[in-house]
Amino acid sequence: MFEKIALVGIGLIGSSLARVIAREKLARHVSISTRSPQTLARAQELGLGHSYSTSAAEAVKDADLVIVSVPVGSSGAVAEEIAPALKSGAIVTDVGSTKGSVIAQMSPHMPAHVHFIPGHPLAGTEKSGPDAGFADLFQNRWCIFTPLPGTDPAALAKLSEFWLRCGSNIDTMDPDHHDMVLAIVSHLPHIIAYNIVGTADDLQTVTKSEVIKYSASGFRDFTRLAASDPTMWRDVCLHNKDAILEMLARFSEDLASLQRAIRWGDGEKLFDMFTRTRAVRRSIIDAGQEIDAPDFGRQAMVHPEKQA
Amino acid sequence: MFEKIALVGIGLIGSSLARVIAREKLARHVSISTRSPQTLARAQELGLGHSYSTSAAEAVKDADLVIVSVPVGSSGAVAEEIAPALKSGAIVTDVGSTKGSVIAQMSPHMPAHVHFIPGHPLAGTEKSGPDAGFADLFQNRWCIFTPLPGTDPAALAKLSEFWLRCGSNIDTMDPDHHDMVLAIVSHLPHIIAYNIVGTADDLQTVTKSEVIKYSASGFRDFTRLAASDPTMWRDVCLHNKDAILEMLARFSEDLASLQRAIRWGDGEKLFDMFTRTRAVRRSIIDAGQEIDAPDFGRQAMVHPEKQA
Ligand SMILES: NC(=O)c1ccc[n+]([C@@H]2O[C@H](COP(=O)([O-])OP(=O)(O)OC[C@H]3O[C@@H](n4cnc5c(N)ncnc54)[C@H](OP(=O)(O)O)[C@@H]3O)[C@@H](O)[C@H]2O)c1
Ligand SMILES: NC(=O)c1ccc[n+]([C@@H]2O[C@H](COP(=O)([O-])OP(=O)(O)OC[C@H]3O[C@@H](n4cnc5c(N)ncnc54)[C@H](OP(=O)(O)O)[C@@H]3O)[C@@H](O)[C@H]2O)c1
Repeated sequence: MFEKIALVGIGLIGSSLARVIAREKLARHVSISTRSPQTLARAQELGLGHSYSTSAAEAVKDADLVIVSVPVGSSGAVAEEIAPALKSGAIVTDVGSTKGSVIAQMSPHMPAHVHFIPGHPLAGTEKSGPDAGFADLFQNRWCIFTPLPGTDPAALAKLSEFWLRCGSNIDTMDPDHHDMVLAIVSHLPHIIAYNIVGTADDLQTVTKSEVIKYSASGFRDFTRLAASDPTMWRDVCLHNKDAILEMLARFSEDLASLQRAIRWGDGEKLFDMFTRTRAVRRSIIDAGQEIDAPDFGRQAMVHPEKQA
Repeated sequence: MFEKIALVGIGLIGSSLARVIAREKLARHVSISTRSPQTLARAQELGLGHSYSTSAAEAVKDADLVIVSVPVGSSGAVAEEIAPALKSGAIVTDVGSTKGSVIAQMSPHMPAHVHFIPGHPLAGTEKSGPDAGFADLFQNRWCIFTPLPGTDPAALAKLSEFWLRCGSNIDTMDPDHHDMVLAIVSHLPHIIAYNIVGTADDLQTVTKSEVIKYSASGFRDFTRLAASDPTMWRDVCLHNKDAILEMLARFSEDLASLQRAIRWGDGEKLFDMFTRTRAVRRSIIDAGQEIDAPDFGRQAMVHPEKQA
């Protein structure tokens, strides 16, 4: 598909891209750059590309497609660094979890002769670094573009084809709406998960070892999101502040009302609140965005002999 | 182990007990009772026991071990119903998720000639009813007893052996401490999950179909707990009110502080908060209470050919 793809950032997302690009033969040459010599060496050991450099400017030279996969707070600095080295006609995209802020940071640096198309693959795990990636990460997940006004349709079509071949479904929306949607489906859940794990960790009436021992009764479900990369999530919080604060305010209001129902023993209200949420999971499973196995299929994982 | 075990309530927990009792041959006769003729008929179709009745009093006659597995708000009424029919020397236990309230409801009805030993297996899924149970449910999970003062050690030893043979590990603690521990490891997580799914469901800027479509980016992790049985969770909220309100207050305080850090752009504080929670998941995996697979192993489930 492309002569040369440059991957700037080779963590979970960058290295998953490297793997699927290789498997699907989407480029003749893949150049990889990352900030630290350690990560670069690991990427090279894993054989993720064809050329390696700690200089992003070096890596993007002659690339037809540049994919920036770094924490959103660093996207401005990366854009500034690569700008002078970008080939005319190149497509430049990113994978950042927030879009308004990334556009504000990157687009001022983008030369007129490249196609800058912001993107966000909604795919991830709680792991990070080049070892954590895998070629199937994007399979059946959504990749959202938030193209700027006047984006070249041919460039957008080419980038869409690339993500389709990585296994994704494609959507486009405006950056503000993206940031609002992600605030509720991703950012708030992570923040709440971090918070509850923090609350549990601070208790003195209940010891840490009790929390760990008895975690299978619900708590452990939150620990996965709360094990996500702190740098990434700090940056998301700082760079999608307004939408996140809006969702936090709504969440807290609703929680206050639930708390009141508990305090006053309003069983009917509790029952109603606990009933309407049930259908949501069913819809998610029907939409192919979740496995249909009780307890996240942990039973089947622990006892593999029991799988159908 | 026992001549006759009576299971009062044959939902997820009761039917899992029926299955493991049969597999491990823990009783010569299993009698089953449940409130509704429909559930009883289903239990009979599934062949979960040897005798079936909608009368709990009928079912407990001559039983050496009686296990009450109904929503905690119904345990008083069940205790009252079975009391006159209990055999002298019988062990009576329950599986309710709250202990202070169950003891307050059941123990006044218990005749002096039986051994009443409150219990709680920390094992479950988000499913309910007799079809949802499975024999491995209790495997490697904890069963907590909250014995009353003066409990007969021989009866406690016998009940412990029963749960060990069901696959559980055993702990004992006092009921207040149990209720505090469970408030943080189970009740708060469920309430928070119900709440966030409710908040998302109410939004107008983001549609329901967007929430469902993009849920793999974090939100779906909460929908499992929020799909749990509304009756069970209404009862838990009503019957462990004080401990739950205490945990909710702490959670809300912590969330307010996190919210403030986001509003004021305090990246250092956010980074610290998001760092210390990481170790908790590692500890849970090391304690054997969670599978060690990224993204809850969903990747392996969806692509079974990739399993080791
Ligand atoms: N993880 C997810 O679930 C997920 C999902 C969708 C989108 N995203 C987005 O994808 C992007 C990358 O996330 P990831 O999970 O792949 O992260 P990751 O595994 O932690 O990898 C981060 C990469 O960015 C580099 N990097 C870190 N700080 C940098 C800085 N200040 N300047 C330049 N490079 C820097 C790292 O380089 P060194 O290792 O050499 O320091 C590494 O190559 C983020 O914008 C995130 O919002 C993540
Ligand atoms: N689910 C979990 O994850 C879990 C984990 C540990 C402990 N527990 C505790 O286990 C107990 C049972 O939970 P479960 O998950 O097995 O529930 P379930 O699958 O919904 O089954 C409930 C059983 O209780 C009966 N029942 C319901 N309401 C009743 C009432 N008012 N009077 C008498 N019987 C009634 C039902 O009878 P009909 O179907 O005939 O109406 C059914 O047999 C609860 O106390 C719960 O707190 C649950």
